Amino acid sequence: MNPSLDFYFFIGSTYTYLSVNRAEAVAAAHGVGLRWQPFNARSIMKAQNNLPFIGKPVKTRYMWRDLERRAKRYGIPFNGIPPYPVDPDGLAGRVAVVASAAGWCPDFARTIYRDWFLEGKAPGDPNALQKQLESLGKDPQAVLEQADSPAIRTRYDEQTQRALELGVFGSPTFVAGDEVFWGDDRLEDAIEWAKAQAN
Amino acid sequence: MNPSLDFYFFIGSTYTYLSVNRAEAVAAAHGVGLRWQPFNARSIMKAQNNLPFIGKPVKTRYMWRDLERRAKRYGIPFNGIPPYPVDPDGLAGRVAVVASAAGWCPDFARTIYRDWFLEGKAPGDPNALQKQLESLGKDPQAVLEQADSPAIRTRYDEQTQRALELGVFGSPTFVAGDEVFWGDDRLEDAIEWAKAQAN
Repeated sequence: MNPSLDFYFFIGSTYTYLSVNRAEAVAAAHGVGLRWQPFNARSIMKAQNNLPFIGKPVKTRYMWRDLERRAKRYGIPFNGIPPYPVDPDGLAGRVAVVASAAGWCPDFARTIYRDWFLEGKAPGDPNALQKQLESLGKDPQAVLEQADSPAIRTRYDEQTQRALELGVFGSPTFVAGDEVFWGDDRLEDAIEWAKAQAN
Repeated sequence: MNPSLDFYFFIGSTYTYLSVNRAEAVAAAHGVGLRWQPFNARSIMKAQNNLPFIGKPVKTRYMWRDLERRAKRYGIPFNGIPPYPVDPDGLAGRVAVVASAAGWCPDFARTIYRDWFLEGKAPGDPNALQKQLESLGKDPQAVLEQADSPAIRTRYDEQTQRALELGVFGSPTFVAGDEVFWGDDRLEDAIEWAKAQAN
Protein backbone atom coordinates (compact mmCIF):
# COMPACT_ATOMS: atom_id res chain seq x y z
CA MET A 1 0.00 0.00 0.00
CA ASN A 2 1.30 3.44 -0.81
CA PRO A 3 1.98 5.53 2.27
CA SER A 4 -0.42 8.39 2.89
CA LEU A 5 -1.17 11.12 5.39
CA ASP A 6 -4.31 12.92 6.41
CA PHE A 7 -3.71 16.65 6.48
CA TYR A 8 -6.19 18.18 8.92
CA PHE A 9 -6.27 21.91 8.34
CA PHE A 10 -8.30 24.92 9.38
CA ILE A 11 -8.50 28.13 7.39
CA GLY A 12 -7.77 30.69 10.06
CA SER A 13 -4.72 28.97 11.52
CA THR A 14 -1.57 30.98 10.93
CA TYR A 15 1.10 28.25 10.71
CA THR A 16 -1.17 26.36 8.31
CA TYR A 17 0.00 28.90 5.72
CA LEU A 18 3.29 27.03 5.61
CA SER A 19 1.72 23.59 5.26
CA VAL A 20 -0.79 24.66 2.62
CA ASN A 21 2.18 25.80 0.56
CA ARG A 22 4.64 23.00 1.13
CA ALA A 23 3.00 19.82 2.47
CA GLU A 24 1.88 18.44 -0.87
CA ALA A 25 5.25 18.90 -2.56
CA VAL A 26 7.22 17.49 0.39
CA ALA A 27 4.91 14.50 0.70
CA ALA A 28 5.00 13.86 -3.05
CA ALA A 29 8.82 13.98 -3.05
CA HIS A 30 8.69 11.09 -0.56
CA GLY A 31 6.01 9.19 -2.47
CA VAL A 32 3.47 9.91 0.26
CA GLY A 33 -0.12 10.79 -0.63
CA LEU A 34 -1.84 13.68 1.13
CA ARG A 35 -5.58 13.77 1.87
CA TRP A 36 -6.76 17.30 2.63
CA GLN A 37 -9.21 17.24 5.54
CA PRO A 38 -10.81 20.57 6.39
CA PHE A 39 -12.11 20.69 9.96
CA ASN A 40 -13.18 23.22 12.53
CA ALA A 41 -10.12 23.59 14.74
CA ARG A 42 -11.63 26.68 16.34
CA SER A 43 -14.53 24.80 17.90
CA ILE A 44 -12.21 22.07 19.23
CA MET A 45 -9.77 24.61 20.64
CA LYS A 46 -12.53 26.62 22.32
CA ALA A 47 -14.03 23.48 23.83
CA GLN A 48 -10.60 22.43 25.13
CA ASN A 49 -9.80 25.91 26.46
CA ASN A 50 -6.75 25.87 24.18
CA LEU A 51 -6.37 29.49 23.11
CA PRO A 52 -2.69 29.94 22.38
CA PHE A 53 -2.74 33.60 21.29
CA ILE A 54 -5.79 35.39 22.70
CA GLY A 55 -4.57 37.79 25.40
CA LYS A 56 -0.96 36.65 24.91
CA PRO A 57 0.80 39.47 23.05
CA VAL A 58 4.37 38.26 23.65
CA LYS A 59 3.65 34.76 22.36
CA THR A 60 1.64 36.19 19.47
CA ARG A 61 4.48 38.52 18.44
CA TYR A 62 6.87 35.57 18.56
CA MET A 63 4.52 33.43 16.45
CA TRP A 64 4.53 35.95 13.60
CA ARG A 65 8.29 36.34 13.74
CA ASP A 66 8.82 32.59 13.79
CA LEU A 67 6.36 32.14 10.93
CA GLU A 68 8.22 34.79 8.92
CA ARG A 69 11.57 33.08 9.50
CA ARG A 70 10.14 29.64 8.67
CA ALA A 71 8.50 30.98 5.49
CA LYS A 72 11.87 32.38 4.40
CA ARG A 73 13.55 29.04 5.10
CA TYR A 74 11.05 27.29 2.81
CA GLY A 75 11.08 29.93 0.09
CA ILE A 76 7.44 30.82 0.81
CA PRO A 77 6.67 34.53 0.39
CA PHE A 78 5.78 36.54 3.48
CA ASN A 79 4.47 40.07 3.33
CA GLY A 80 4.11 41.25 6.90
CA ILE A 81 1.52 40.35 9.50
CA PRO A 82 -1.87 39.75 7.83
CA PRO A 83 -5.33 40.38 9.38
CA TYR A 84 -6.10 38.10 12.33
CA PRO A 85 -8.38 36.47 13.42
CA VAL A 86 -10.38 35.69 10.28
CA ASP A 87 -13.42 33.82 8.89
CA PRO A 88 -15.67 34.56 11.91
CA ASP A 89 -18.65 32.69 10.41
CA GLY A 90 -16.66 29.70 9.17
CA LEU A 91 -17.74 30.37 5.59
CA ALA A 92 -14.30 29.79 4.07
CA GLY A 93 -14.04 26.60 6.11
CA ARG A 94 -17.33 25.32 4.75
CA VAL A 95 -16.33 26.21 1.19
CA ALA A 96 -13.23 24.09 1.82
CA VAL A 97 -15.58 21.18 2.62
CA VAL A 98 -17.40 21.74 -0.67
CA ALA A 99 -14.06 21.93 -2.45
CA SER A 100 -12.87 18.77 -0.74
CA ALA A 101 -15.90 16.79 -1.93
CA ALA A 102 -15.40 18.14 -5.47
CA GLY A 103 -11.63 17.62 -5.65
CA TRP A 104 -10.33 21.19 -5.76
CA CYS A 105 -9.52 21.70 -2.09
CA PRO A 106 -5.74 22.20 -2.46
CA ASP A 107 -6.16 24.93 -5.09
CA PHE A 108 -8.84 26.61 -3.01
CA ALA A 109 -6.77 26.58 0.16
CA ARG A 110 -3.70 27.93 -1.61
CA THR A 111 -5.75 30.74 -3.19
CA ILE A 112 -7.32 31.72 0.13
CA TYR A 113 -4.00 31.68 1.98
CA ARG A 114 -2.18 33.59 -0.76
CA ASP A 115 -4.81 36.33 -0.74
CA TRP A 116 -4.78 36.39 3.05
CA PHE A 117 -1.03 36.46 3.62
CA LEU A 118 0.12 38.36 0.55
CA GLU A 119 -2.82 40.66 -0.23
CA GLY A 120 -4.21 41.15 3.26
CA LYS A 121 -7.66 39.81 2.32
CA ALA A 122 -9.13 38.09 5.38
CA PRO A 123 -10.65 34.70 4.49
CA GLY A 124 -14.41 34.44 4.74
CA ASP A 125 -15.49 37.73 3.19
CA PRO A 126 -18.31 36.77 0.76
CA ASN A 127 -17.29 39.36 -1.86
CA ALA A 128 -13.69 38.21 -1.83
CA LEU A 129 -14.83 34.57 -1.95
CA GLN A 130 -16.90 35.34 -5.03
CA LYS A 131 -13.78 36.52 -6.88
CA GLN A 132 -11.63 33.72 -5.50
CA LEU A 133 -14.10 31.09 -6.66
CA GLU A 134 -14.34 32.74 -10.09
CA SER A 135 -10.56 32.73 -10.39
CA LEU A 136 -10.72 28.96 -9.81
CA GLY A 137 -13.30 28.56 -12.59
CA LYS A 138 -16.15 27.76 -10.20
CA ASP A 139 -19.69 29.12 -10.06
CA PRO A 140 -19.50 31.33 -6.95
CA GLN A 141 -23.26 31.52 -6.39
CA ALA A 142 -23.69 27.75 -6.50
CA VAL A 143 -20.67 27.04 -4.31
CA LEU A 144 -21.63 29.61 -1.67
CA GLU A 145 -25.16 28.26 -1.53
CA GLN A 146 -23.80 24.76 -1.10
CA ALA A 147 -21.48 25.97 1.66
CA ASP A 148 -24.51 27.20 3.58
CA SER A 149 -26.51 24.00 3.08
CA PRO A 150 -27.34 21.67 5.96
CA ALA A 151 -25.55 18.82 4.17
CA ILE A 152 -22.22 20.65 4.09
CA ARG A 153 -22.63 21.97 7.63
CA THR A 154 -23.23 18.41 8.78
CA ARG A 155 -20.25 17.15 6.83
CA TYR A 156 -18.03 19.84 8.40
CA ASP A 157 -19.24 18.80 11.85
CA GLU A 158 -18.58 15.16 11.06
CA GLN A 159 -15.07 15.97 9.85
CA THR A 160 -14.48 17.89 13.07
CA GLN A 161 -15.82 15.03 15.16
CA ARG A 162 -13.52 12.61 13.36
CA ALA A 163 -10.54 14.90 14.04
CA LEU A 164 -11.54 15.11 17.70
CA GLU A 165 -11.72 11.32 17.96
CA LEU A 166 -8.25 11.00 16.45
CA GLY A 167 -6.87 13.35 19.12
CA VAL A 168 -6.41 16.32 16.79
CA PHE A 169 -6.47 19.59 18.77
CA GLY A 170 -5.10 22.21 16.37
CA SER A 171 -4.09 23.01 12.82
CA PRO A 172 -2.12 21.92 10.91
CA THR A 173 -2.11 18.28 11.97
CA PHE A 174 -0.85 15.30 10.03
CA VAL A 175 -2.26 11.87 10.87
CA ALA A 176 -0.57 8.63 9.85
CA GLY A 177 -2.69 5.69 10.98
CA ASP A 178 -3.18 6.32 14.71
CA GLU A 179 -0.25 8.71 15.03
CA VAL A 180 -0.95 12.41 15.33
CA PHE A 181 1.67 15.02 14.38
CA TRP A 182 0.78 18.59 15.22
CA GLY A 183 2.37 21.58 13.58
CA ASP A 184 3.96 22.37 10.26
CA ASP A 185 7.29 21.57 11.91
CA ARG A 186 6.22 17.94 12.37
CA LEU A 187 5.44 17.36 8.68
CA GLU A 188 8.73 15.57 8.10
CA ASP A 189 8.25 13.37 11.18
CA ALA A 190 4.78 12.45 9.93
CA ILE A 191 6.09 11.57 6.48
CA GLU A 192 8.78 9.36 7.98
CA TRP A 193 6.17 7.63 10.11
CA ALA A 194 3.81 7.06 7.17
CA LYS A 195 6.64 5.57 5.13
CA ALA A 196 7.78 3.29 7.94
CA GLN A 197 4.19 2.08 8.45
CA ALA A 198 3.77 1.25 4.77
CA ASN A 199 6.92 -0.88 4.67
CA MET B 1 33.91 36.46 17.16
CA ASN B 2 32.86 32.86 17.69
CA PRO B 3 29.13 32.32 17.32
CA SER B 4 27.25 31.65 20.52
CA LEU B 5 23.76 31.09 21.84
CA ASP B 6 22.07 31.75 25.14
CA PHE B 7 20.15 28.68 26.25
CA TYR B 8 17.35 29.84 28.54
CA PHE B 9 16.01 26.85 30.39
CA PHE B 10 13.68 26.05 33.25
CA ILE B 11 13.84 22.86 35.29
CA GLY B 12 10.21 21.77 35.19
CA SER B 13 9.72 22.20 31.45
CA THR B 14 9.14 18.88 29.74
CA TYR B 15 10.60 19.49 26.27
CA THR B 16 13.69 20.96 27.94
CA TYR B 17 14.64 17.34 28.62
CA LEU B 18 15.57 17.06 24.96
CA SER B 19 17.61 20.26 24.88
CA VAL B 20 19.45 19.53 28.11
CA ASN B 21 20.58 16.29 26.50
CA ARG B 22 21.42 17.43 23.00
CA ALA B 23 21.87 21.22 22.72
CA GLU B 24 25.48 21.31 23.82
CA ALA B 25 26.63 18.55 21.46
CA VAL B 26 24.71 19.94 18.48
CA ALA B 27 25.99 23.47 19.10
CA ALA B 28 29.56 22.25 19.56
CA ALA B 29 29.40 20.28 16.30
CA HIS B 30 28.65 23.62 14.60
CA GLY B 31 31.33 25.52 16.50
CA VAL B 32 28.68 27.43 18.42
CA GLY B 33 29.13 28.15 22.12
CA LEU B 34 26.23 27.61 24.51
CA ARG B 35 25.64 29.72 27.63
CA TRP B 36 23.27 28.00 30.04
CA GLN B 37 20.84 30.54 31.50
CA PRO B 38 18.52 29.21 34.17
CA PHE B 39 15.40 31.35 34.56
CA ASN B 40 11.94 31.13 36.04
CA ALA B 41 9.75 30.32 33.07
CA ARG B 42 6.88 29.47 35.39
CA SER B 43 6.55 33.01 36.73
CA ILE B 44 6.65 34.48 33.21
CA MET B 45 4.10 32.00 31.91
CA LYS B 46 1.75 32.61 34.83
CA ALA B 47 2.02 36.38 34.40
CA GLN B 48 1.29 36.03 30.67
CA ASN B 49 -1.60 33.62 31.23
CA ASN B 50 0.30 31.14 29.07
CA LEU B 51 -0.55 27.76 30.60
CA PRO B 52 -0.26 25.28 27.75
CA PHE B 53 -1.14 22.09 29.64
CA ILE B 54 -3.15 22.88 32.78
CA GLY B 55 -6.71 21.69 32.17
CA LYS B 56 -5.83 20.54 28.64
CA PRO B 57 -5.68 16.73 28.78
CA VAL B 58 -5.70 16.14 25.00
CA LYS B 59 -2.84 18.53 24.35
CA THR B 60 -0.96 17.19 27.39
CA ARG B 61 -1.31 13.60 26.18
CA TYR B 62 -0.03 14.65 22.77
CA MET B 63 2.92 16.48 24.32
CA TRP B 64 4.16 13.34 26.06
CA ARG B 65 3.76 11.23 22.93
CA ASP B 66 5.54 13.82 20.81
CA LEU B 67 8.31 14.09 23.38
CA GLU B 68 8.70 10.30 23.38
CA ARG B 69 8.96 10.19 19.58
CA ARG B 70 11.41 13.07 19.49
CA ALA B 71 13.57 11.48 22.20
CA LYS B 72 13.72 8.30 20.14
CA ARG B 73 14.69 10.29 17.05
CA TYR B 74 17.62 11.80 18.95
CA GLY B 75 18.68 8.62 20.71
CA ILE B 76 17.74 10.06 24.10
CA PRO B 77 16.28 7.48 26.49
CA PHE B 78 12.63 7.79 27.48
CA ASN B 79 11.05 5.74 30.21
CA GLY B 80 7.37 6.63 30.25
CA ILE B 81 5.65 9.73 31.53
CA PRO B 82 7.50 11.10 34.58
CA PRO B 83 5.96 13.02 37.51
CA TYR B 84 4.55 16.41 36.54
CA PRO B 85 4.47 19.26 37.54
CA VAL B 86 7.64 19.42 39.63
CA ASP B 87 9.85 21.69 41.76
CA PRO B 88 6.96 23.60 43.37
CA ASP B 89 9.27 25.81 45.47
CA GLY B 90 11.75 26.50 42.68
CA LEU B 91 14.58 24.94 44.71
CA ALA B 92 16.08 23.01 41.79
CA GLY B 93 15.89 26.19 39.70
CA ARG B 94 17.81 28.15 42.31
CA VAL B 95 20.42 25.41 42.62
CA ALA B 96 20.83 25.76 38.84
CA VAL B 97 21.64 29.44 39.43
CA VAL B 98 24.27 28.47 42.00
CA ALA B 99 25.62 25.89 39.55
CA SER B 100 25.67 28.42 36.74
CA ALA B 101 27.76 30.86 38.78
CA ALA B 102 30.15 28.05 39.72
CA GLY B 103 30.46 26.50 36.26
CA TRP B 104 28.73 23.12 36.73
CA CYS B 105 25.28 23.98 35.45
CA PRO B 106 25.23 21.57 32.46
CA ASP B 107 26.19 18.57 34.61
CA PHE B 108 23.63 19.54 37.23
CA ALA B 109 20.81 19.97 34.70
CA ARG B 110 21.59 16.66 33.01
CA THR B 111 21.63 14.86 36.39
CA ILE B 112 18.33 16.37 37.46
CA TYR B 113 16.63 15.60 34.15
CA ARG B 114 18.01 12.06 34.02
CA ASP B 115 16.73 11.32 37.52
CA TRP B 116 13.41 12.94 36.67
CA PHE B 117 12.75 11.28 33.32
CA LEU B 118 14.44 7.93 33.84
CA GLU B 119 14.07 7.32 37.59
CA GLY B 120 10.84 9.19 38.24
CA LYS B 121 12.44 11.48 40.86
CA ALA B 122 10.67 14.83 40.71
CA PRO B 123 13.17 17.73 40.72
CA GLY B 124 13.20 19.90 43.81
CA ASP B 125 12.94 17.28 46.54
CA PRO B 126 15.61 18.31 49.11
CA ASN B 127 16.56 14.71 49.94
CA ALA B 128 17.02 13.81 46.29
CA LEU B 129 18.94 17.04 45.70
CA GLN B 130 21.30 16.12 48.53
CA LYS B 131 22.23 12.88 46.74
CA GLN B 132 22.35 14.52 43.34
CA LEU B 133 24.74 17.19 44.59
CA GLU B 134 26.89 14.56 46.29
CA SER B 135 27.06 12.57 43.06
CA LEU B 136 28.42 15.72 41.39
CA GLY B 137 31.12 16.06 44.08
CA LYS B 138 29.51 19.12 45.67
CA ASP B 139 28.83 19.92 49.32
CA PRO B 140 25.03 19.54 49.45
CA GLN B 141 24.58 21.51 52.65
CA ALA B 142 26.56 24.50 51.39
CA VAL B 143 24.90 24.49 47.97
CA LEU B 144 21.37 24.21 49.36
CA GLU B 145 22.04 27.05 51.80
CA GLN B 146 23.35 29.17 48.99
CA ALA B 147 20.28 28.32 46.87
CA ASP B 148 18.11 29.77 49.63
CA SER B 149 20.20 32.90 50.08
CA PRO B 150 18.87 36.36 49.14
CA ALA B 151 21.77 36.80 46.72
CA ILE B 152 20.83 33.76 44.65
CA ARG B 153 17.12 34.56 44.80
CA THR B 154 17.89 38.03 43.49
CA ARG B 155 20.11 36.63 40.80
CA TYR B 156 17.36 34.23 39.69
CA ASP B 157 14.89 37.13 39.52
CA GLU B 158 17.38 39.17 37.50
CA GLN B 159 17.92 36.30 35.07
CA THR B 160 14.15 35.98 34.70
CA GLN B 161 13.80 39.72 34.14
CA ARG B 162 16.48 39.59 31.45
CA ALA B 163 14.67 36.73 29.73
CA LEU B 164 11.42 38.69 29.89
CA GLU B 165 13.07 41.72 28.31
CA LEU B 166 14.42 39.57 25.49
CA GLY B 167 10.91 38.31 24.74
CA VAL B 168 11.45 34.83 26.16
CA PHE B 169 8.13 33.29 27.22
CA GLY B 170 8.87 29.60 27.71
CA SER B 171 11.53 26.91 28.00
CA PRO B 172 13.66 25.92 26.22
CA THR B 173 14.54 29.12 24.37
CA PHE B 174 17.66 29.86 22.39
CA VAL B 175 18.68 33.49 21.91
CA ALA B 176 21.10 34.63 19.22
CA GLY B 177 21.62 38.36 19.51
CA ASP B 178 18.09 39.80 19.39
CA GLU B 179 16.54 36.70 17.83
CA VAL B 180 14.49 34.40 20.01
CA PHE B 181 13.94 30.75 19.11
CA TRP B 182 11.46 28.89 21.27
CA GLY B 183 11.37 25.13 21.59
CA ASP B 184 13.81 22.28 21.28
CA ASP B 185 12.66 21.97 17.68
CA ARG B 186 14.10 25.42 16.91
CA LEU B 187 17.62 24.60 18.13
CA GLU B 188 18.91 24.05 14.60
CA ASP B 189 17.34 27.31 13.36
CA ALA B 190 18.98 29.16 16.25
CA ILE B 191 22.36 27.65 15.50
CA GLU B 192 22.09 28.64 11.85
CA TRP B 193 21.16 32.15 12.88
CA ALA B 194 24.07 32.44 15.33
CA LYS B 195 26.51 31.27 12.67
CA ALA B 196 25.15 33.67 10.03
CA GLN B 197 25.43 36.55 12.51
CA ALA B 198 29.03 35.75 13.33
CA ASN B 199 30.10 35.78 9.68
